[in-house]
Amino acid sequence: MNKRVLLARYPSGLPVEADFVLDEVPVPEPKDGEFLIRNLYFSLDAGFRQWMREGAGDNYLAAMQIGDPVMSLTLGRVERSRHPDFSEGTLVLGRHAWETFTLTDASDFTAPLEVDPEVPLHLYLGTLGPTGLTAYFGLLDIGQPKAGETVVVSAAGGAVGSIAGQIAKALGCRTVGLTSSDDKAAWLEAEVGYDIGINYNAADGLDAALQRACPEGVDIYFDNVGGAILDTTLTHLRQNARVVLCGMVADYHDADKPYGITHLWQAITKRATLKGFMYTDEVARYPEAMARMRGWLDAGAIRTFDEIHEGIETTPAAFCGLFTGANRGKAIIEL
Amino acid sequence: MNKRVLLARYPSGLPVEADFVLDEVPVPEPKDGEFLIRNLYFSLDAGFRQWMREGAGDNYLAAMQIGDPVMSLTLGRVERSRHPDFSEGTLVLGRHAWETFTLTDASDFTAPLEVDPEVPLHLYLGTLGPTGLTAYFGLLDIGQPKAGETVVVSAAGGAVGSIAGQIAKALGCRTVGLTSSDDKAAWLEAEVGYDIGINYNAADGLDAALQRACPEGVDIYFDNVGGAILDTTLTHLRQNARVVLCGMVADYHDADKPYGITHLWQAITKRATLKGFMYTDEVARYPEAMARMRGWLDAGAIRTFDEIHEGIETTPAAFCGLFTGANRGKAIIEL
Repeated sequence: MNKRVLLARYPSGLPVEADFVLDEVPVPEPKDGEFLIRNLYFSLDAGFRQWMREGAGDNYLAAMQIGDPVMSLTLGRVERSRHPDFSEGTLVLGRHAWETFTLTDASDFTAPLEVDPEVPLHLYLGTLGPTGLTAYFGLLDIGQPKAGETVVVSAAGGAVGSIAGQIAKALGCRTVGLTSSDDKAAWLEAEVGYDIGINYNAADGLDAALQRACPEGVDIYFDNVGGAILDTTLTHLRQNARVVLCGMVADYHDADKPYGITHLWQAITKRATLKGFMYTDEVARYPEAMARMRGWLDAGAIRTFDEIHEGIETTPAAFCGLFTGANRGKAIIEL
Repeated sequence: MNKRVLLARYPSGLPVEADFVLDEVPVPEPKDGEFLIRNLYFSLDAGFRQWMREGAGDNYLAAMQIGDPVMSLTLGRVERSRHPDFSEGTLVLGRHAWETFTLTDASDFTAPLEVDPEVPLHLYLGTLGPTGLTAYFGLLDIGQPKAGETVVVSAAGGAVGSIAGQIAKALGCRTVGLTSSDDKAAWLEAEVGYDIGINYNAADGLDAALQRACPEGVDIYFDNVGGAILDTTLTHLRQNARVVLCGMVADYHDADKPYGITHLWQAITKRATLKGFMYTDEVARYPEAMARMRGWLDAGAIRTFDEIHEGIETTPAAFCGLFTGANRGKAIIEL
């Protein structure tokens, strides 16, 4: 049978497990031009929350539909094929869905995946996959880090943040990670290698903490959250600062009452650049990026923090954990 | 006597004439290392409003002080000098104040000015001065306009906006100007040369007007106002759009309750760049910029829209007019 996780309803505010429902249907059979993928891993990405909303269709992808399997990046292997380009046994990475089997004609984003057998397969969804590529292109292309600069990362212990912070450190930057608890702030320093971990929920507030951690100001802010944390950090930018607009998780679950950014004028006097991006625009440079990430991994300059959940039934709870601060590193479902 | 316009109190909201007061004091005498400038023109710039506020000192310049002559860009001629680098008769441009005579040791921003006698002198405060340089560097360096692209300019009939729109047009762009009345929108099209003038106060709203004027989206947004107009325009950006953050006049007079920008996430999916700047960072390129501006002026590709007010007594009313929509082009006081 094909086990699936369907969208039961559009989440209101933070996603909860009851927004999703499991079902089972027969495994479909490929027709001419189609092939069947047996999914091995799901990538859990907070950013997908933004398409769990009515009328989200103006935002890069169409809104997800109630009753459909939930859209997700997945890694799988071709099980049966009637498609000329995808033979049985081929590993594929794609924007598919939370289901054990996916039938496709490759008209969605689906790409064959070449792997090094010495590398754990799930790394190709994380550090050596979309997550790592996002951190790499965002930090290097927009951030343009120079040794000695101060780099602040929000959601610093999350999938992209934990990699971005480590790349910045490998390049000789001073790194400051923002996270949601004292525990995680200590973990950022002890395990992920940040010079300073800040709990933005601490009583004395993010503003004071940034003042202490970055008395000379922030050269690069790698922003995964938007909202009030972005707004506060804008007031700590240094001259010619770069702000990497990577994600705005703060807005995803509150589209009706989004936070209003009031300090954008700081970008004028600080001559700052804010830039959004999508790693998928840089397909031609994936080999360069993956080779460099692999080099850092092999040298021990970057560690992978993967949080692997076993079984499709764990998917809703693990996904909801991305929004509550429970998650550390890259959340992956192993089937 | 030295006639001066003093800051009587910090404006509350929009500046009004009663925020300023005229006085007369004896003309000061230069000591060693000082020189006396007879001011010929004041440049009126909405941006200076942001320093008419208590505690504005973290914002590039110190706050103005109650009872002091109001800070302003001025153009004048050295009347008496005991400074080795500024001989009598030299024309100077500087960040001085609304007064007929300025005594300085050149420790503020003060630079000798070389002029072409065939050009009206006041153009060196406007199209061939700070205003033109701001439009030039903002549009060319950040906007990077290409022929055929759609360029939207806010405060499109103002000093910087009217020049930015004309440069964009000279470079083959489609230009859309945003302004505050039907009259000015018609004037933008008939006189300033915009392809489309939009009154953002019209009943059907800016959103609908931008949808009609830019169905394919906005490649470059040259923003002089910030606030709600910036926020709405963010939702009309095209892929890889550039947003020139030049001024946020909407925030200057309401610092206690600034407008919150809610659509910054658009920069992610649109891969947009937002960048602030100051023309004064590009001193080395002034000759290049002035030569090119002069070429466009001589060729008739750019017209200067200067609004010249006669006499220091007219300064408060003319300055306040920058905020009410009364102003067209570059407002200058001629002494």
